[in-house]
Amino acid sequence: MATDTRLAADLDTASLHGSLEDPALSSMNLLNEIADRYPQAVPFAAGRPAEEFFDTDDIHRALRAFADHLADERGMSPAQVRRTLFQYGRTKGVVHHLVARNLAVDEGIEVDPEAVVVTVGCQEAIYLVLRALRRGPEDVVLAVAPTYVGLTGAARLVDLPVLPVASGDDGVDLDDLLAVLRRARREGLRPRALYVMPDFANPTGLSMDRAVRQRLLDLAHREDLLLLEDNPYGLFRSGRDRVPTLKALDRHRRVVYLGSFAKTVLPGARVGYVVADQRVADRSGEPGLLADQLAKIKSMLTVNTSPIAQAVVGGRLVQQECSLAAATVQEQQRYARNLRQLLDGLARRFPAGGPPAAAVRWNAPVGGFFVVLTLPFAVDDQLLEYSARSHGVLWTPMRHFYDGPGGEHQLRLSISSVTPVQIDLGLDRLAALVADRLGAGP
Amino acid sequence: MATDTRLAADLDTASLHGSLEDPALSSMNLLNEIADRYPQAVPFAAGRPAEEFFDTDDIHRALRAFADHLADERGMSPAQVRRTLFQYGRTKGVVHHLVARNLAVDEGIEVDPEAVVVTVGCQEAIYLVLRALRRGPEDVVLAVAPTYVGLTGAARLVDLPVLPVASGDDGVDLDDLLAVLRRARREGLRPRALYVMPDFANPTGLSMDRAVRQRLLDLAHREDLLLLEDNPYGLFRSGRDRVPTLKALDRHRRVVYLGSFAKTVLPGARVGYVVADQRVADRSGEPGLLADQLAKIKSMLTVNTSPIAQAVVGGRLVQQECSLAAATVQEQQRYARNLRQLLDGLARRFPAGGPPAAAVRWNAPVGGFFVVLTLPFAVDDQLLEYSARSHGVLWTPMRHFYDGPGGEHQLRLSISSVTPVQIDLGLDRLAALVADRLGAGP
Repeated sequence: MATDTRLAADLDTASLHGSLEDPALSSMNLLNEIADRYPQAVPFAAGRPAEEFFDTDDIHRALRAFADHLADERGMSPAQVRRTLFQYGRTKGVVHHLVARNLAVDEGIEVDPEAVVVTVGCQEAIYLVLRALRRGPEDVVLAVAPTYVGLTGAARLVDLPVLPVASGDDGVDLDDLLAVLRRARREGLRPRALYVMPDFANPTGLSMDRAVRQRLLDLAHREDLLLLEDNPYGLFRSGRDRVPTLKALDRHRRVVYLGSFAKTVLPGARVGYVVADQRVADRSGEPGLLADQLAKIKSMLTVNTSPIAQAVVGGRLVQQECSLAAATVQEQQRYARNLRQLLDGLARRFPAGGPPAAAVRWNAPVGGFFVVLTLPFAVDDQLLEYSARSHGVLWTPMRHFYDGPGGEHQLRLSISSVTPVQIDLGLDRLAALVADRLGAGP
Repeated sequence: MATDTRLAADLDTASLHGSLEDPALSSMNLLNEIADRYPQAVPFAAGRPAEEFFDTDDIHRALRAFADHLADERGMSPAQVRRTLFQYGRTKGVVHHLVARNLAVDEGIEVDPEAVVVTVGCQEAIYLVLRALRRGPEDVVLAVAPTYVGLTGAARLVDLPVLPVASGDDGVDLDDLLAVLRRARREGLRPRALYVMPDFANPTGLSMDRAVRQRLLDLAHREDLLLLEDNPYGLFRSGRDRVPTLKALDRHRRVVYLGSFAKTVLPGARVGYVVADQRVADRSGEPGLLADQLAKIKSMLTVNTSPIAQAVVGGRLVQQECSLAAATVQEQQRYARNLRQLLDGLARRFPAGGPPAAAVRWNAPVGGFFVVLTLPFAVDDQLLEYSARSHGVLWTPMRHFYDGPGGEHQLRLSISSVTPVQIDLGLDRLAALVADRLGAGP
């Protein structure tokens, strides 16, 4: 009998979009697979929010609160409320006014609700902006490196090269930014924007101080560069006063602000947003908002963000008078306590005194979810797998956040979904891994 | 004082992605704007589902039913149920097993749940497939014309040309399909797939009979072409037995099946799916499922479909033992009655006898939402605006569904969101518009 060899495969990735052969698109899957194989390992890898505050009844309460808000404050009839929840809806969303109020209350950002596009998580917001900005092969986006893998992945989907800019100790190295910009332009490239996470960046945990933010804004204005400010962790500071966001300081509509409710309300709603108040000229001559251009793309991507999911987030905002800073005090305290415990625990296990552990270094973020460790040996996916299997502790190799070289001796620890007991246990296991790797054996 | 002319605009659409200057991306907005200006006009334009069956408490009941299903049938602990609803989740979705069961029950389609990707509405499913299939400038997609504008719009986002294939009276003209295929290949293009809506197509209302479906499948297999089968209206037949879907007849994994719950459950969940059981070879050599490649794209686009939105759909499926055919009997009857009333009303108002109205022709679909009228004068957006303003009736110019020429004298009527009283009133108004246009005056 002849074998039909075509049955072996119907398609080949070599004939599909190039992104599908790119490591950036498989990075999350690969890490999740390792984590799934070792459910008992301490999860210093997961960047997802703590689950201890989840309560299923909250979903019902939030839905009711939003429906009441539509009726009482927006003057909708019961039929209009039902239509808002059930039917196809406004492309830019139905909680835009609450998002704008939240930004005013928590961030001091004043925006026209019409400049807000509610998206399927912040990831869709990133995609919409990159899709709009990539016109031709000369377009490039800059990103502070190491970079959140979601930025790199979305850029791959629109064939937009990502040029790394050094982070330095300030969260962005402005000299390097200027050098990268000028080199790109000399080469005929058109840098469209710089992607930054000024507050407790993923993965470095670094924040920019106010002077750096102001210099970055000045440079962006001078060089005609947009700034894509992503801010999922801003509320989770540890003690100190917050520095204003770039968007709050923006005087020249240089900043496109990317927002997420994944860490402040819940990831399962998949509701984020983008504030895009830039004026865009089109052939009709009448300048409109960049938000309306993004909405045109969204209408062909997801049509609109589920109004039921929006209602869960909108209800939570209504319940909290639009302040998530006030609503997340418990979460803030939990994350701050975890971060302190992690940093103290690292200092105890790797004291400045004696080698070989002295070669272990780490940074000391004042908030957010992440700490970066630098180790005296190579850190890669094989070591992660070994760590999970032999030592029962998970973390993220920093290599995953670099498009080019970088992070070869570093790993990221996340404090968001571990308990105090797990932190101590995980650090003991991490110390054992280090000793193991340095040949001292546990 | 010098005027800073740069303040007039920060960006120009000429520097943004080409799709943003394309009429396909503005088509829906333009039509919605006209509709919004004339809220009293009879809405023969809207393709959205009827609202009379919406009940807000259904959302709560469905959420509870899905949570109970996870606990009772999937053996999850309360913490696991909460995590499933609240947390980031599986990229391919959490109701995939229910979708697979629904396809088996209602469509006789047997698929591995792992081949299902749950998406943010069918629109995201279309985008994922087109993004995967477009590798380079030689790639093109074919589509039966006139074509659902969401296909054209998504193709624009990935710079994928759409080649029209004649619909004919059969739903697809197979001779034209072969001619288009061969011409494209001669020109060095690579046709990746043909987009079809075999049941009550949007906008024509046409369906393919079983023989045409089989010939189409044979041709696709012979010519190594994928078929993208979109099926939002299949359940809404009028009387007659249903013809099996292409996917149910597919013996060679030629069909990628695009599904929607917008018309059978509710649009506001924004939950759709794609069945992609094609085997894909990658560098590792081990063939995987096309669904897993699509999931990689989705992970960088929307991460995952809101599990809360999925739970509303999943709960509805659980409540109905996975049969939406049984669950939508009322809707089916309503749409069938409306369609009959519309066709009867057209026949009464434009009798075969006397001119000039004799020049009005229409097709007679046996199900779905849409009927196409051919008129003895030009039909465009200006006429629509005039019709809404002067005669109080809304409809959709067929021009919007053609990428090239076509539909210049046609309009689409939709029966999905009108009452019987509105149908009669709307047809009277439409007859007045025709008389007005033909100079007979009302």
